[in-house]
Amino acid sequence: MEDSQKPRIGLDRLIGPRSVAVVGASEDVDKFGGRVIHYLMKHGYAGRLIPINPNRATIRGLPAYPAVSAAPEAPDVAILAVPAAQLETQVADCAAAGVGGCIVITGKLAEAGPEGAALEEKIVATARSAGMRILGPNCLGILNPVERAMLSSSLALDGGPFGAGGIGMVSQSGALMGTLFAFGSDHGARFSRCVSVGNQADVELVEVLEHLVADEATRSICLYVEGVKHPRRFHQALRDARAADKPVFIVKVGRSEAGVRAARSHTASLAGSYAAFEAICRDAGAVLMEDTGAMVLAADAAIRLPRLPRAGMGVAPIASSGGSTAVFADLMPGAGLRLAELSAETRAVLGGFMPESHVALPLDTGSFHSGQNEAAMETCIRAFMADPDVGAVAFPMTTQPFMAQRAAVLPALCREGRKPLIYVMSAGSIGDAARERLREADFPYYDRVSDALAVLRALEAEAAGRARRMRPDVVRPSFAPPPQPSPASQERESSLPCKRSAAGEGWGGGPNHLTEHETKSLLSTYGIPVTRERLAHTIADALAAARDIGFPVVLKGVSRAVVHKSDLGLVRLDIRDEAALRDAYRAIEAAVDRHAPGTLDGVLVQEMARGEVEAFLGATHDAGFGPMVLAGIGGVLVEALHDVRMAPAPITADDARALFKSLKLAPLLHGLRGRPPADLDAAVEALVRLSWLAADLGPRLVELDVNPLILRRVGEGAIAVDARATLA
Amino acid sequence: MEDSQKPRIGLDRLIGPRSVAVVGASEDVDKFGGRVIHYLMKHGYAGRLIPINPNRATIRGLPAYPAVSAAPEAPDVAILAVPAAQLETQVADCAAAGVGGCIVITGKLAEAGPEGAALEEKIVATARSAGMRILGPNCLGILNPVERAMLSSSLALDGGPFGAGGIGMVSQSGALMGTLFAFGSDHGARFSRCVSVGNQADVELVEVLEHLVADEATRSICLYVEGVKHPRRFHQALRDARAADKPVFIVKVGRSEAGVRAARSHTASLAGSYAAFEAICRDAGAVLMEDTGAMVLAADAAIRLPRLPRAGMGVAPIASSGGSTAVFADLMPGAGLRLAELSAETRAVLGGFMPESHVALPLDTGSFHSGQNEAAMETCIRAFMADPDVGAVAFPMTTQPFMAQRAAVLPALCREGRKPLIYVMSAGSIGDAARERLREADFPYYDRVSDALAVLRALEAEAAGRARRMRPDVVRPSFAPPPQPSPASQERESSLPCKRSAAGEGWGGGPNHLTEHETKSLLSTYGIPVTRERLAHTIADALAAARDIGFPVVLKGVSRAVVHKSDLGLVRLDIRDEAALRDAYRAIEAAVDRHAPGTLDGVLVQEMARGEVEAFLGATHDAGFGPMVLAGIGGVLVEALHDVRMAPAPITADDARALFKSLKLAPLLHGLRGRPPADLDAAVEALVRLSWLAADLGPRLVELDVNPLILRRVGEGAIAVDARATLA
Repeated sequence: MEDSQKPRIGLDRLIGPRSVAVVGASEDVDKFGGRVIHYLMKHGYAGRLIPINPNRATIRGLPAYPAVSAAPEAPDVAILAVPAAQLETQVADCAAAGVGGCIVITGKLAEAGPEGAALEEKIVATARSAGMRILGPNCLGILNPVERAMLSSSLALDGGPFGAGGIGMVSQSGALMGTLFAFGSDHGARFSRCVSVGNQADVELVEVLEHLVADEATRSICLYVEGVKHPRRFHQALRDARAADKPVFIVKVGRSEAGVRAARSHTASLAGSYAAFEAICRDAGAVLMEDTGAMVLAADAAIRLPRLPRAGMGVAPIASSGGSTAVFADLMPGAGLRLAELSAETRAVLGGFMPESHVALPLDTGSFHSGQNEAAMETCIRAFMADPDVGAVAFPMTTQPFMAQRAAVLPALCREGRKPLIYVMSAGSIGDAARERLREADFPYYDRVSDALAVLRALEAEAAGRARRMRPDVVRPSFAPPPQPSPASQERESSLPCKRSAAGEGWGGGPNHLTEHETKSLLSTYGIPVTRERLAHTIADALAAARDIGFPVVLKGVSRAVVHKSDLGLVRLDIRDEAALRDAYRAIEAAVDRHAPGTLDGVLVQEMARGEVEAFLGATHDAGFGPMVLAGIGGVLVEALHDVRMAPAPITADDARALFKSLKLAPLLHGLRGRPPADLDAAVEALVRLSWLAADLGPRLVELDVNPLILRRVGEGAIAVDARATLA
Repeated sequence: MEDSQKPRIGLDRLIGPRSVAVVGASEDVDKFGGRVIHYLMKHGYAGRLIPINPNRATIRGLPAYPAVSAAPEAPDVAILAVPAAQLETQVADCAAAGVGGCIVITGKLAEAGPEGAALEEKIVATARSAGMRILGPNCLGILNPVERAMLSSSLALDGGPFGAGGIGMVSQSGALMGTLFAFGSDHGARFSRCVSVGNQADVELVEVLEHLVADEATRSICLYVEGVKHPRRFHQALRDARAADKPVFIVKVGRSEAGVRAARSHTASLAGSYAAFEAICRDAGAVLMEDTGAMVLAADAAIRLPRLPRAGMGVAPIASSGGSTAVFADLMPGAGLRLAELSAETRAVLGGFMPESHVALPLDTGSFHSGQNEAAMETCIRAFMADPDVGAVAFPMTTQPFMAQRAAVLPALCREGRKPLIYVMSAGSIGDAARERLREADFPYYDRVSDALAVLRALEAEAAGRARRMRPDVVRPSFAPPPQPSPASQERESSLPCKRSAAGEGWGGGPNHLTEHETKSLLSTYGIPVTRERLAHTIADALAAARDIGFPVVLKGVSRAVVHKSDLGLVRLDIRDEAALRDAYRAIEAAVDRHAPGTLDGVLVQEMARGEVEAFLGATHDAGFGPMVLAGIGGVLVEALHDVRMAPAPITADDARALFKSLKLAPLLHGLRGRPPADLDAAVEALVRLSWLAADLGPRLVELDVNPLILRRVGEGAIAVDARATLA
């Protein structure tokens, strides 16, 4: 091997070993050790294979040894699936022998309870003291077709042969890894290295991800993730993958509470916040998907098909079935895809083969004039490939005469056109002849319309991520907050007029809630516009404030003991005169006396702000991924619809704009029912500034909500009407 | 055949023919007529087969005849795929010979343009005059495994043998029908009769549907629909299917504009309103789906698996992979499914096999204590089957040792438990041994998690539809609108005080818009509460009205020339005193002068209604399906979110309530942020009454919107604040 001259660093020795010891090797393929050695030999492992079995002199014709330490050389890797009770001894023996890394299939360790966790810690300590790595425990090993090192007992290896390819995979579930390897291989996908990390006692998912990013053989990456142990490093690895033009496709459990709970008990992972995970994927240009099978198909498509020229282009479906093209086109918008708008040139080409009335997408070649045939279809596909709005061509096939011949012409058309051509063969095994022709041409196919749509959507997201990452990084905008703000508590003490209530002080060292007025002061520091307001402690104070601010005003009772002020009647809107103000003031006092006596810190007299749309801005510090901002639209609806998107802070204006535009309620921004459009620019500006606040405060910020930020009509700005924050 | 004694009615002769003529029969299976005769013989057609070919004396050993009319008997069916130019002659020959029905595969007829449409009309006229039926043209015939009559050239017939089963199918796409037949058969699904209706020149989809509802062999039904020609009859057929306990699973093109356009050009169908179609499916208890493959799998599951005991139960996922169960559980809520809440009894059973901390759904059998095995898994599944909250068990398998043995025990557990057990084998061909064991047991399996979820969701919808249809039909509630209301125009003239404006009269016989005040009068007739209001023609009038109604009031300029009043400043809210009223009145006059001079019919003085939530009620008359009501929540958001559901009118209170509760914005009804819950009962009552209005007016009602209906807090009712209507 040429490779053998290269220095071997990081996980090279573990993932591409030149010698492998199989602990518990056997002739019986129904036993773990028998299966591992069988698979290594079956798939042509070219390194040295060392069976370990105290009761046998040879196994499958190879000399066997009673222990790893008794072998004539220290193997790069030892694979173990011994019972937990023997694990400590075996790992110690491997460490003493100078093994490079142990692949520990054995389960019932940290995932099973405290006893297993203690044992897991012990073997890791033993390994570390000897400079030996541990993959697992509770993993299914490594599938490395590039070096024909199938270091696994996965029954996926009953299949094959498996050629080497470019898809790298890291999985927190060994069984899923084997399953996806088998499923992808059935479709002609080929892999570089697939690693099951199990409990990640030593080797962690992110380290393997970094390895794949650096690995020459790997061109796209699949991740099955339950929880991330090193979130910032993981985020950086995704960015590095994007920079290396290795698209990453991810399925992460934790969309729903059910998934979070399931992942927590499995492989002892913390699922973490799905919203934050989604945010960092979008930031890094990684593609988050739902279906694990579609994930592998997308990673394969990113290698075996041309990439989309850019995001936002249309799709051109064409087939010889009006039904299947109609179904395909009908489902496209639900997958975030659109039909292409054909150019006049393309329409002219199509018009040569069919009545003008049928020149439209999706294209049913059944509409061709009689006598037109394969050549016409090829000409149409060439025209699509040349059309400036066509990003991809889709070919949703059904049972048809000449299915296989028709399929055979497509790979060349795709390669010539340098745009993805998505071939769907929905007809089950009856379509195998067509699939076979595509396999011969090393071209992907999909068995289901849903897979084709998921792959197209993923390729679209890949193109969007590629564009994002080519943009310069965020730069601090030209406003001047304190670069190193003094601790928030000091700042609050010094700059804010209100007294601390008894309830607000200390709270046993728990989180520190800022009042609305305090939070707005903080927002002002970052240049976010807030309502004119003054804290009053008497009716006379309040009247004076209202005269300065100008009627109508709003009155809000300030009490650190109350989070949702309006629920308790502490908010009085649209007070138009002095008499109304007096009434309102007294009503607030009475309400506080009823619900939280003695906690009234004062009454905020505030300008009555009006506008077009209520936005929601949020900032938080994700325990894993760091500072985040949130954007929403729609006042109380934000909660009802869960219509909030998150992004890592700080954020660029472009990203902030994209965040708002991705909301379900984004149409409200355009001005419904003849209302004028709202000032989105002002919302974007406020979100960017808030993102710097979040970035500056870091973990000191627990959460900050601006709800609502009222957007006035375009050009008239936005204003924070209510806000609250919690500091650590 | 015993059958031969039965009277043959309706489509019997066409769908289950005792003799078939193949026009253009050939020995060459690459030719249409060769393929048809080949498939008929291959699949064991037991009737008389009559090849028609003027140039041959025998074909495949059978005597051939130069024309159908030259054959020794009039065949039940003749299949033709002759060029369009010969079609007229051939059909006439068949009609003269006394053929029961022609299956016309030939395309390029109505779907291709006016010339083809004319030809299509001619052959139908010829057939009708002879009492002969036509299936197609532009169809792919009939697949009838029950009578082994495979009357089609579909390449799906290269597969087989195809046993007879209970799934009936009607498809507006022949290629899709063949594809779904092949796909389903691969999965072990078996069909009764599948009919491709093509252009429906004579035999229409609904007639075949009715045939399948009556057909003894058919137990569940799949429909691929592009457009419905006889909507009311179709609706009734779905209800009849439900009454006969034959669940119907439907994919209809037309979710998106792209699909609507595609369906329109294909088979010359009008797609119709998807929302109305969805409404009648829900009403009839039919299950509308997205994916055509999943549709067939669901129809199969409805036969080969036990049905869900009732809607709303939980699912219990169990497998030997923590990853695959986590993924499955994570995706369930997105498919409208939930995990079951295990009973104490079930938890106790599970606790016998695993640490207490792991007793939870989804169940990972990898958590079992060492030494526990298949028997423990079986005991857990039995416990699930007995659990009162478990509706179905899901078994999402990955590559595992003993996959096949494990699969083999499941069918008996499912049958014994009488609840669906959904087996997923995601690992591609490596799982074939497991699949084979299930095929041997005549038990369904799914290759993809997405299929399993779609099938579970469909079974859930089937159970919900079953429960719905067991409820009594709607009865007119106890209020007394005129049973035969006088024509709306008369009623309006007689009962309403306002004069007609010039713009309102005639409009060239176009639709007739009712003003807000007129619409509310109509609503009042049906007992729907509306705001107290009076139409004023002078400021003095208006002042008097406001004094009677009580300040604050709302002023609205009434002009038949203006649809969106608030866009033009014709609405003035919250007028608190006489001075403000004078100003507002003059401002409205000025606005009308600016935008539509001379069209002011008066100014409506209205009570200022306040409440918790704004609802939207609508009524319309769907050209196909008849009177419909619509429900929405959220004021202007109704449009932004397209958050409206439709139901056929009249409607029961239960259905109206379900409609509101199915809205995305339904959480608003509960009262957000400490607001009190809104009076849903009042909204339900108003919608029921509106549904009777829609039912009574029938096609005279083009559309009527109540927007908003303001819902006050529970027990305080609802009130229609704005409304408009258009009559035909």
